[in-house]
Amino acid sequence: MIIGGSASQALAAEIARELNDKLCSVETKKFPDGERYFRIKDEIPKDESVIIVQSTGYPQDENLMEIFFILDILNDMDIEDITLVSPYLGYSRQERRFKEVECISAKATAKLIQTMGVKRVISINLHEESICQLYDIPVDNLSAMPTIAEYILNNFNDTKPVILAPDKGAENFAKEIAEILETDYDYLEKVRLSPEKVETKTKSISVKNRNVVIIDDIISTGGTIVNAIEILKDQGAITVDVFCVHPVLVNDAILKINAAGANSVQGTNTLKSEVANVSVATLIADYIKNI
Amino acid sequence: MIIGGSASQALAAEIARELNDKLCSVETKKFPDGERYFRIKDEIPKDESVIIVQSTGYPQDENLMEIFFILDILNDMDIEDITLVSPYLGYSRQERRFKEVECISAKATAKLIQTMGVKRVISINLHEESICQLYDIPVDNLSAMPTIAEYILNNFNDTKPVILAPDKGAENFAKEIAEILETDYDYLEKVRLSPEKVETKTKSISVKNRNVVIIDDIISTGGTIVNAIEILKDQGAITVDVFCVHPVLVNDAILKINAAGANSVQGTNTLKSEVANVSVATLIADYIKNI
Repeated sequence: MIIGGSASQALAAEIARELNDKLCSVETKKFPDGERYFRIKDEIPKDESVIIVQSTGYPQDENLMEIFFILDILNDMDIEDITLVSPYLGYSRQERRFKEVECISAKATAKLIQTMGVKRVISINLHEESICQLYDIPVDNLSAMPTIAEYILNNFNDTKPVILAPDKGAENFAKEIAEILETDYDYLEKVRLSPEKVETKTKSISVKNRNVVIIDDIISTGGTIVNAIEILKDQGAITVDVFCVHPVLVNDAILKINAAGANSVQGTNTLKSEVANVSVATLIADYIKNI
Repeated sequence: MIIGGSASQALAAEIARELNDKLCSVETKKFPDGERYFRIKDEIPKDESVIIVQSTGYPQDENLMEIFFILDILNDMDIEDITLVSPYLGYSRQERRFKEVECISAKATAKLIQTMGVKRVISINLHEESICQLYDIPVDNLSAMPTIAEYILNNFNDTKPVILAPDKGAENFAKEIAEILETDYDYLEKVRLSPEKVETKTKSISVKNRNVVIIDDIISTGGTIVNAIEILKDQGAITVDVFCVHPVLVNDAILKINAAGANSVQGTNTLKSEVANVSVATLIADYIKNI
């Protein structure tokens, strides 16, 4: 039985279809004062395996509370086998303390999720792998890179573009896609030319007269990507297409990235977005089939 | 040590002042993607009694998550003596199931609050007294009626108005205020005159040529109050002033109530509101002093 949360209704339906599993009938609404309501309309037997599908992007606190509400109902039904599929798991950037005494919100969230009875978490490209250690239950961190590579193969004229990470931190994403496409990858690096002058450029290869695909896990404000596009264009790239797993894309990020000269900006449907063209439903369903 | 949440900063400061207690220095912000950040800047000794002050009105889920984040920090500090003062405790209207299988959000909230380490909850005029039974820890449900009565005594020319509840459910609030002011109280009742005709009127006393004060615990959309004002005016009331404990007052409720002919509409500062003229700080501080 699959239960879709408000943030991931279509994705939940797609996963249910791929698994040939039942999509639970629910009723959800908001009262005039902003309080949420959640009701499960199907009967669920006690020994059923239940999968809740809900990303916790914006509004993250509402989406989290909705998960807790669903879990509380399942607890009342004595259901124990509960998996949370949260393709985008919010509060993943504060997974440790940078200053005394900050809330490690990823840890607090982990505690709440476990307390309410989740037995396994499945997520996609967690911003920090170390998030998994904050849980006492299994946390499976899937990679959407093969899915994005496949999308490029099926939709791009040039299926051997340079795959470029906007910084060293994202290099592994570029590598993963490049290996599938059997093409080059690289990352942008800051080089200090003089005490006053810093230049950002590709680490090892030239993008001159090449099509480039930028890949990152999360694009939020888009500032880094705008910079990267400008540098790649300066260095003679023909086209620059931008991909991310999690299209957070706050404020005017989509416009900014396009205005900077991107040929396209796209992401997966871990989050609701205008540019969520790549579905992770098969990735998740295939993984669940093999558990 | 008093820690103020984002929803109740001024109230937390007022309570700290009345208790001659330290107000904790905190840093709170929202990232561009909507995620919240909370940091405690003061050192707090392990054996300190900590009081978190945070109402959970709109945005209720954000305010709740902030409470959980504060609690997670306090857990990391090994602080055990934690009281949550939530003058307006959200999700108090769904304290039981009206349909199968609804989330009893008041119960889910109670579980989360307790799991995160709260040892005592202090609230004001919980919409349902039975909320207290959803907790395994003490829940103190204070009444703001004496505070409102005192406000009327100090600010009204006619300190013996008719105190009127808009329905039977609120009769006890009217009674509590009327007894302090030594004046009359009543409630509005629906009387079926014929199969087609229902009339709403005061149960026992006449409001003709009297000043009236309407009292309710929560005013949300204001529909009931607008009705009540129209009836009271019809019945010859001179003035109608409206009080509530929790000024939820969604959308255009303040305008609607005033436009219906109210002389004023006021509430306490359990919630941030333009009309939160009555402070519950002394009520809470005095109660804490005597625990």
